[in-house]
This record gives sequence, C-alpha cells and structure tokens, in this order.
Amino acid sequence: MRYRVILKILGILLMIFSITMLPALLVSYIYEDGAHKAFMAGFAITLLTGFFLWLPVYRVREDLRTRDGFLITVLFWTVLGLFGAVPLMLADYPHLRIVDAVFESVSGLTTTGATVMTGIDWLPNSILFYRQQLQWLGGMGIIVLAVAILPMLGIGGMQLYRAETPGPVKDSKLTPRITETAKALWYIYLSLTVLCALGYWLAGMTVFDAIAHSFSTVAIGGFSTHDASIGHFNSPVIESIAIFFMLVSGVNFGLHFFAWRQRSIGHYFQDPEFRFYLTLLGGTALVTFMVLALTQTYAVNEALRRSVFMVVSIATTTGFSTADFANWPVMLPFLLFVTAFAGGCAASTGGGMKVIRILLILKQGYREIQRLVHPSAIISVKVGNRPISDRVLEAVWGFFSVYLLVFVLMLIALLGTGLDQVTAWSAVGATLNNLGPGLGDVAVHFGDLNDTAKWILCFAMLLGRLEVFTLLVLFTPIFWRR
Amino acid sequence: MRYRVILKILGILLMIFSITMLPALLVSYIYEDGAHKAFMAGFAITLLTGFFLWLPVYRVREDLRTRDGFLITVLFWTVLGLFGAVPLMLADYPHLRIVDAVFESVSGLTTTGATVMTGIDWLPNSILFYRQQLQWLGGMGIIVLAVAILPMLGIGGMQLYRAETPGPVKDSKLTPRITETAKALWYIYLSLTVLCALGYWLAGMTVFDAIAHSFSTVAIGGFSTHDASIGHFNSPVIESIAIFFMLVSGVNFGLHFFAWRQRSIGHYFQDPEFRFYLTLLGGTALVTFMVLALTQTYAVNEALRRSVFMVVSIATTTGFSTADFANWPVMLPFLLFVTAFAGGCAASTGGGMKVIRILLILKQGYREIQRLVHPSAIISVKVGNRPISDRVLEAVWGFFSVYLLVFVLMLIALLGTGLDQVTAWSAVGATLNNLGPGLGDVAVHFGDLNDTAKWILCFAMLLGRLEVFTLLVLFTPIFWRR
Ligand SMILES: [K+]
Ligand SMILES: [K+]
Repeated sequence: MRYRVILKILGILLMIFSITMLPALLVSYIYEDGAHKAFMAGFAITLLTGFFLWLPVYRVREDLRTRDGFLITVLFWTVLGLFGAVPLMLADYPHLRIVDAVFESVSGLTTTGATVMTGIDWLPNSILFYRQQLQWLGGMGIIVLAVAILPMLGIGGMQLYRAETPGPVKDSKLTPRITETAKALWYIYLSLTVLCALGYWLAGMTVFDAIAHSFSTVAIGGFSTHDASIGHFNSPVIESIAIFFMLVSGVNFGLHFFAWRQRSIGHYFQDPEFRFYLTLLGGTALVTFMVLALTQTYAVNEALRRSVFMVVSIATTTGFSTADFANWPVMLPFLLFVTAFAGGCAASTGGGMKVIRILLILKQGYREIQRLVHPSAIISVKVGNRPISDRVLEAVWGFFSVYLLVFVLMLIALLGTGLDQVTAWSAVGATLNNLGPGLGDVAVHFGDLNDTAKWILCFAMLLGRLEVFTLLVLFTPIFWRR
Repeated sequence: MRYRVILKILGILLMIFSITMLPALLVSYIYEDGAHKAFMAGFAITLLTGFFLWLPVYRVREDLRTRDGFLITVLFWTVLGLFGAVPLMLADYPHLRIVDAVFESVSGLTTTGATVMTGIDWLPNSILFYRQQLQWLGGMGIIVLAVAILPMLGIGGMQLYRAETPGPVKDSKLTPRITETAKALWYIYLSLTVLCALGYWLAGMTVFDAIAHSFSTVAIGGFSTHDASIGHFNSPVIESIAIFFMLVSGVNFGLHFFAWRQRSIGHYFQDPEFRFYLTLLGGTALVTFMVLALTQTYAVNEALRRSVFMVVSIATTTGFSTADFANWPVMLPFLLFVTAFAGGCAASTGGGMKVIRILLILKQGYREIQRLVHPSAIISVKVGNRPISDRVLEAVWGFFSVYLLVFVLMLIALLGTGLDQVTAWSAVGATLNNLGPGLGDVAVHFGDLNDTAKWILCFAMLLGRLEVFTLLVLFTPIFWRR
C-alpha cells in the first residue's frame, strides 16, 4: 500500500471539502441564524487537518495501484462523513451527539436521506442548506465514482454495462478522456440542478427551498427543509416536477451524456436498462394505484397522485414523501420497499442493487428454465443484442448474493440490539439501498434507535453506496497480504 | 406430451397410494376410534379413481420424454396431496373443510409439518397415525425424487453434486442400477426408521408414539401426536435420540448408501457438504446457547438443552419443538429461520435450499472478492478437490435467485390477503423451506389464516419440495410449445 500518497490525496480532499462549508457560512450570515460559528470552526478544523496530513508528504509522487484505489475510495467516504459531522456537533441548535451527527452526515453524503432529527422546519437555514448540499456533493461523488473510479477497481454496474453504453464508459482508465467525461457529467449534473431549482421556484417554492430541494432531488437524496417533505407544499405542480427530475436522475448518466452530445433522445429508448426501469416503475405504480383505489384508501384522483409520486420516490430510492405510505395497506409498503432493492440505473445517483443487475438476474433465471426444457440448446443471456459474458454474469451473481448476505447479517445484528422485526428489516433496507425512510419505528426518523444500531446503519449506508465489494474487500485477509 | 402414458402412470400411482390407507384403517380397528369409515371411503375413492384412469389406457406403451417427467412429478405430488386429504374431510373428527384437509395432506406429503389443527392430543389414533405416515411416505418419495427423478430432469442439488458423491448418484438415467440403488436407499430409510422407533420406545414412549414419531423424524417432517410436540415427553433421552436421527436424516442419503456398502464412516467426514452442514449447525447452536444463557432466558443447563434441540430441529427443517422459540429474544427466531433456508443436505429428507448450494454460493462470493484483489488470476470454485463447472454454478445461481423471487412474490401475495409482516414472511419461509412452524400468528398452527393464504402456502410447500423449477417450468409458455 502506498500509504504516503494516500495520505497526500486524503489531505487534498479534506482541504477541498473544507471549502464546501463556506456556502453554508454565507447562508448563516444572510439569515443571521446564529450557526456561523459552527461552520467557521468546521471549516478551520477540516482545512487544518487536511493541511497537516498533506504537508509532510506533499512531495511524494508514486503511482497508485488498484489496491490503493479501494482504500482511497473507502477513506474518501468515511473521512468526509466524519468531518462533515463537525458543524452538526458544534452548532448550538442542533447540538448533535457524535453518533447522530455522523449518521446525519453519512446519510447526506451517501444520498441516503435518513435523518435522526425532528423539527426540521425549525432548524437554522444554514444547517438546512448544509444538509442539502451534503447530498448534492454526494450525488456528484457517486457519478464520478461510478463512471471513473469503480470501473478501474473492477467493481460495479458500469463495468458490467461497459460494452452496452455508447459514450463515456468504454474507457476503464482515468485517461484525459475520462477527465473530459467527468467534466461533461459535471455540467449535466449542474444543468439538471439549475433546471430543477428553476422549476421548483416557478412552481411556487421560495428561492431557498427551490435550491435546497433541487440539490436533494438530482442527488436522489431525499433530505428536505420540512418535516412534511415535499408534502409540505401540497402542490401537484411541484410534485410533477419532482417526479420528472427523480426519474431523470435515476437514469444512467452515461445515457444523458450521449444524448447531450448527439442532441438525440431516441437513444434512451434503445437502452434495455432504461426500458426495464420505466417498466418496473410503471408496473409498480399501476398496482399501487389499483390497491389504493380499490381499498378506498383515497379517492381515485388522490390515489393516482399519491401512488405515482410515492412509487417514483421509493423505487428510485429518493425517499421524498407526500403520503404516510408506511400506513398504507400492508402489502404496499413492502412492495415499494422491494422495488427499492432494484433502485436506480447503473451510474445514476440512485441506490439499490441497480436495475441492470436485476434485469440480468431475471434473464439468467429464465435461461435456466429454458435449459430445462431444451437441455442441449446453447442459450446466451443477451441485453439488447449483445450477449453478456459469463464473467460479467458471475460478477452480478456474486454481487447479488453478497448483498443479500450483508442484508441478513445486518438484520440479525439489529435484532440483536433489540429492534422489532419490521423496524429492523426496513431500517437495513432503507440504509443499504440508500433509500432513506423506513417502516415501523423508523418510518419518520431514525433518532430513537439505540447507538449501536445507528453505527451499524452508518456502515450499511457506506456499504450500499460503495457497491458493497469496495468496502468489504478491506475486511479480507488477502487484501492486506504482502 | 404423452398424455395417455401419463394418465396410466397416474392411475397406477393412485392405486398404490390407496393401499397406504389400509394401515390407518387397521389402527382404527385396533383402537376402535370410530374413524374407520373415513379410511374405507378414502381407500375406495382413491383406488377406483386410479383404476378408471388406468383402464382406458393400460395397453399404451410409449417412451417418456424429459418434458413428460416434469408433468408426472408435479402431478404425483399434487394429486396425492388431493387424495390424501380425503380421509381428513370424511372423518367425523376432524371434519376438515377442503382447504384445511388439502393443506394438512400437502403439508404431510411434502414433509413440511405445518398443521391447521389444534387439539392434536384428542384426535383419533388412526388420524394421528395417518398424518405421520403421510410424512414418512413423503420422505421416501423425496429420496427417490432427489436420487432418481430430478437428475433425469436436470434439476436439483444432486445433479450439481453428481461428480462429487461416490456411489449411487453417478448415473443419471433410471437404469436397473438406479432401481437397485432405490431399493438400497429404501432399506436404509426403513432401517433408520426402525432404529429410531426402537430408540424412542426404549426411552419411554408408547409403541404407538415411538412408531409415529420415528416416521416424522426420519422424514424430517415434524408432525407429532401431541400439541406440545417432542416437548410433551419432557425427556432429555428422547430429545437426544431425536437430535441424532434428525441430524442423520438431514445428510445426503447417497453418503449413507456408500457408508453402508463400504462399512465405513470415514467417508462422511471427507464430504465437504457434510462438514459444512455440521459447521453451520454447530455455529448456530453455539450462538443460540450463548444468547439464551446471557439473556438469562433459561438457566445454563436448560439453555444448552433447548438451544441444541431447537437449532437442529429448525436448521434441518424438521420443525419439532421443545420450547416456545418464537418468543425467544427476537434475534434468535430470525436467526434460526435463516438457517432453515440452508436446510438439509442434497438428497436428504430435509428442506430449504440445501447446504451444498449455500456452500457454492459462499465460495463464489469469495471468489469475486479474490478476483478484485487479483484481477488477472484464474480462480476456480472447488468443492473438496474438484473444480465446479460454470454450468453447475449457473444452475445454482438460477435456483437461488428464483427461490428468492418466489419468496418475495408469495410474501407480497400473503400481505395482500391481510396478514401482518412477521406472520407473512415466516409463513412463506416455513412452507417454502418445508420447515413447518412459523412465527407471529402461525407460531403454533396455521388454522386461523384466511383460505387464500392457505392455498398460496400449499403452493409454496409444493414449490419448495419440487425444488421450485420442476413446478415453475409448467407455468412457462416454452414448456407447452409444440
Ligand atoms: K435517498
Ligand atoms: K418439516
């Protein structure tokens, strides 16, 4: 391991990250909300820590190897998660304990959107802005991670997908071309944010709320500046805008890149993952609508409005809320939660296992049935017209089984801390899938859980965001050997 | 499809099956319990139906093809399940409705052991005997299915395992050699039953109870003649005998066959699946014991006794009970339930996904991690010293994902009928894994569920017992094409 280069990179990252506390500081001055000291201290602590990590090693130049890449990626998310917690601990209100602050910070950066806080409406504006911004930064980090870093490490949906997507993802090394790509993706991400904010503002949100919610929408984050989430605004127009941008942000950013370069949207519909994504969402929304209407949970119009919004919000793993879906007829919360396991497309800001993996798993399952009927036929799994190699399929299976294994082990651990079954399984599902809200005792917020459970769930959020393997590999002896 | 031959075979099967009602009839005469009419009627109905199915086609001779094999196998279990229900509907006590009778009968034949009845202690002896015998017949059916039929159809744990196990399983066709093997397995099964019954009797059970419980022990069935199950006897000796025979019956019968022919038990310990089976059981028992002792749920001695029995009972998917484990600290019921997903070894009478599949899945997961650290290394998945082919691994993955998909879909369906989450998921787990007892509202019996839920769970028991694919393939268009 090239520890000195790793320290240097970490130092630089922290110094850059410290700068992200300044906008919140500015907000604090504008609104005179009294939280400015927390952000000044946070800025100074993060900057100085970064500087003193960087100083002793800044002359070091060594090439990084794949193994170092794993460590850097994991450190990136954990260390920023820790330092991101500092302002939340130092502010007079909220004056969070370390476990709560880290939970909130990690939940922000991983774009999970689970919160330990109540009375969101009464928080200082700068703190609100800061939470939303954490999600937005996290969302950008995810795109870079998925497009540039993970393929280098041999992990993730994009790698599987590489032969499929036209455009930026064919290169697996961080060449100048990828840097170009990252820049283009950044413009796309920024443009989506601006458009989303404009839409929210025109639809009647304040400038502050519009920017804040655009951050957490395009990041598929789900934090809000109100306890009632998007439901606070009670506006069909705002909900429609949110639905549109959640849908768009759950799509592979490689597709956006291609569409943007070619000025064409036809390619979206040629993409099998995109089509399956829409099919899943449409099918779930239809079932949800019908159950809500038939059980007369709402009037028909209301049922349509609530079902489409909540299905898109949960299935893309955003976690915005316009209805108390945990109390819908009991099949629906479970159904919606299951869709969150599929989550967004590869290389989107969405969580979950990613739609492309589910598609491949279903195709492989169907191939096994075909093989039973025609034992001697040679049948390949295809996505679009391309056959998928066995190696890629094995990676998908490995991911799927390890994901489920991690899910079950964390669930057992949470039950061991004394949670009831519904709370425990939905808490793991909500964090591992980077979804946000759970059911049972965590339907509204995670604040009442015991500390052990909160730490476990922080770990779950990181595991989910780092596609499990990136983090898990650090816990194997072979990673550290030699 | 060769429908006429299929009808002929079905007719013969029913005629044979009708004979199995005669021992219960005998028991009814011995104890004068008043249920003899139900068994006479059941015998006559089953015999005559079989005869009239067989009569028009008894001259037909055609070779069966693989596809016919699927249909016959599925019909075998469903039709016997239906006719097995007849005496339970006709008896004065219990006078079950059709859904309950079919549930009980299917639960018996699939060796699930979930019951819809209460007041087991007060049932007529002949009905008690009949339920136990259903399990015993089911257990024998499973061994034949696993060793002779499923490999022919290209399904199941044994097929994957074929290159591994010495002895009977290397042939995939129903040659005379396999007939010999089936006979040998039958002797082993019978010998285990006799030994188990003798053990129970010497330990203090009545002759009736000893025979009845030996039936449901070696079949890994779990039916009992008492509401309190094995706990009724409150005897550490009886519990130890049960533990031993549950363990033995959860082992691949191919291994027993080999050990019996070679007069050697060393080969057991050379078998990777057997070793992993003992490791899983031992590890789970240790954790369970420690949690029970540390939480002071029982005194230390009592904790040891209860934990070992319940872990072996649940993990092998037997479902006998000596403790109200559904009310143990909440992590334990869940943990034990998870072990039931692994279940018994391939070609045992146990349920679940089978230990060998879990072993292969874990090895494949670990291989993916190795590949991340050493991307260019060629690593094969080995069991013992033999590398496992990609084709076999793909079959395991296909099984695993379809099993989980079926689990989730049935869970959603049950929630749709109005069950609560814990009841629903444990009910599906208990039936799909052919385990028996659940948690929540089905911790003691399944009688209070709605009828739709009972039918769904009947289907789950059949799916589990037929290794999912055998039954599922009938629902695909390609199976019926041409
Ligand atoms: K989220
Ligand atoms: K059982």
